[in-house]
Amino acid sequence: MTLLVVGSVALDSVQTPFGSAEHVVGGSATFFASSACHFAPVQLVGVVGRDYPMQKLEALAASGVDLAGLERVAGESFRWRGRYGHDLNSAETLETRLGVFADFRPKIPAAFRHAPYVFLANIDPQLQLAVLDQVSSPRFVGCDTMNFWIASRRNELLDVLRHVDLVTLNDGEARQLSEQVNLVHAARWILDRGPRYVVIKKGEHGAFLFSRPDRASEGNSSPDARVRIFFAPAYPLEQVFDPTGAGDAFAGGFMGHVARTDDLSDQNLRRAVVVGSAMGSFAVEAFSNERLLAVTADEIAARIREFYELVTFENGR
Amino acid sequence: MTLLVVGSVALDSVQTPFGSAEHVVGGSATFFASSACHFAPVQLVGVVGRDYPMQKLEALAASGVDLAGLERVAGESFRWRGRYGHDLNSAETLETRLGVFADFRPKIPAAFRHAPYVFLANIDPQLQLAVLDQVSSPRFVGCDTMNFWIASRRNELLDVLRHVDLVTLNDGEARQLSEQVNLVHAARWILDRGPRYVVIKKGEHGAFLFSRPDRASEGNSSPDARVRIFFAPAYPLEQVFDPTGAGDAFAGGFMGHVARTDDLSDQNLRRAVVVGSAMGSFAVEAFSNERLLAVTADEIAARIREFYELVTFENGR
Repeated sequence: MTLLVVGSVALDSVQTPFGSAEHVVGGSATFFASSACHFAPVQLVGVVGRDYPMQKLEALAASGVDLAGLERVAGESFRWRGRYGHDLNSAETLETRLGVFADFRPKIPAAFRHAPYVFLANIDPQLQLAVLDQVSSPRFVGCDTMNFWIASRRNELLDVLRHVDLVTLNDGEARQLSEQVNLVHAARWILDRGPRYVVIKKGEHGAFLFSRPDRASEGNSSPDARVRIFFAPAYPLEQVFDPTGAGDAFAGGFMGHVARTDDLSDQNLRRAVVVGSAMGSFAVEAFSNERLLAVTADEIAARIREFYELVTFENGR
Repeated sequence: MTLLVVGSVALDSVQTPFGSAEHVVGGSATFFASSACHFAPVQLVGVVGRDYPMQKLEALAASGVDLAGLERVAGESFRWRGRYGHDLNSAETLETRLGVFADFRPKIPAAFRHAPYVFLANIDPQLQLAVLDQVSSPRFVGCDTMNFWIASRRNELLDVLRHVDLVTLNDGEARQLSEQVNLVHAARWILDRGPRYVVIKKGEHGAFLFSRPDRASEGNSSPDARVRIFFAPAYPLEQVFDPTGAGDAFAGGFMGHVARTDDLSDQNLRRAVVVGSAMGSFAVEAFSNERLLAVTADEIAARIREFYELVTFENGR
């Protein structure tokens, strides 16, 4: 099934302890699409300036990402410059130039409006709401967000939560949004705001999927019904080259798997978390979206098997 | 099979955001034994001063821990005072008074010297070596250590590593010991120093078991043979009351399970990590060793099933 993503398309300049890259393909929608395109047809909506080196997006188009919704307008493209130290868990932002992204008003092409799966990547919650106004009753909507929007657009973000099925955020963002230190409490707080699923990403420490049981189907009308919890570790990589985009690659793998299988069962969403974790682990093996685009179906399957080996134990004795 | 533990028996005073406890049962050997006694007969070797409230150890003895190796000598007992903030991952030590523990020279009673399973809890590596001199070819020896010994007794600690099957340490200690940032590299460095198994504990972020493949049995003589990796998350508790002793409770569950089953297969050691994680999760639900001693076999089995539910996914499609 088709998967629509709306988010940023940027030019990144990144320094890590292992090297640096200048003006390479970046942005939340780009990383998401580079990951999701291995599983489902992806439609991308975003904006770039006239300065954007469009040939750098050819590999994405060749991988089956429909770029008909990528506007090209007068002005500078969104540029981000960041640096990672030996603790690769968090980037130090050296420069953010929003450029044409500052005035981005997503316009969903008519051909994209019936996408059954939709992901609202990390953009202003007001724009996420504007996207929801333009799509026609999708089967499943996921969204991402960040600390900046939690602080500056709290009401709009809470409005988004009422209209999505899934929200992905990192542990710090989950605590900030819910004002709960404990992650289980944070997840329950968020689930009570609307979404049926919350993914809390902990970077190198893995990711949780919290699910609100379907009260009708489980015959449980108690508001205290326990949330279901699944956890997948991050793949214990020996070389993390550049963490940029890992979270978006995770979301792309998760949503891509769900769109491909069109199956919202608990078991399938667990597998979606593992697919997302696998794609996140590929994302960090190279700069930009290089490794994500180059990875083969066999490599993805092999890494998912490695996740299985990593966590599996016999529930005997 | 019998399990011998040598370590500290202390009086702890702990402050957490949820309350405080004064002069309660603490120490690495105590927490270890309180956990392991659910699985195997435990023999404890340690030292306390004449001031130790021995009636506080009665519950331990009643749970099947043989205290014949607990010396009682003139002087003050080991006392530790610490405080946890809302980030419950690390304690701030307010006071450490070693007392009689400063002159501790472990004497293994004749009746304990043939224990097939031995755990050297967190004490001076010189003393760990002295214990190994007194035991008679145990089947499996594990040890713990800490940042203080890594810095001050590095050579002695490396000597210990040559003589044990398993070492448990936390992620910071593994990095400090190996001088490797990457945990897979750190684990391989440690495995190359002697032990066949390394457990790296990450507190609320779970625990890794790294295993050196048996080269003979796997027909692989390459020094680069991949290490085997198993990971278990920490149980996502909604209330962490007091983290003191969680690592020792983990080790007690791990070693207790191995001693009970007398089975060193990869599958059984994976389960030992889960048993350890379960016992660590009980340890933090109350002050001191209260919850550890009170937990029932049914509660342990139920929590292990919850771990299984937490990480299990179908390795299909």
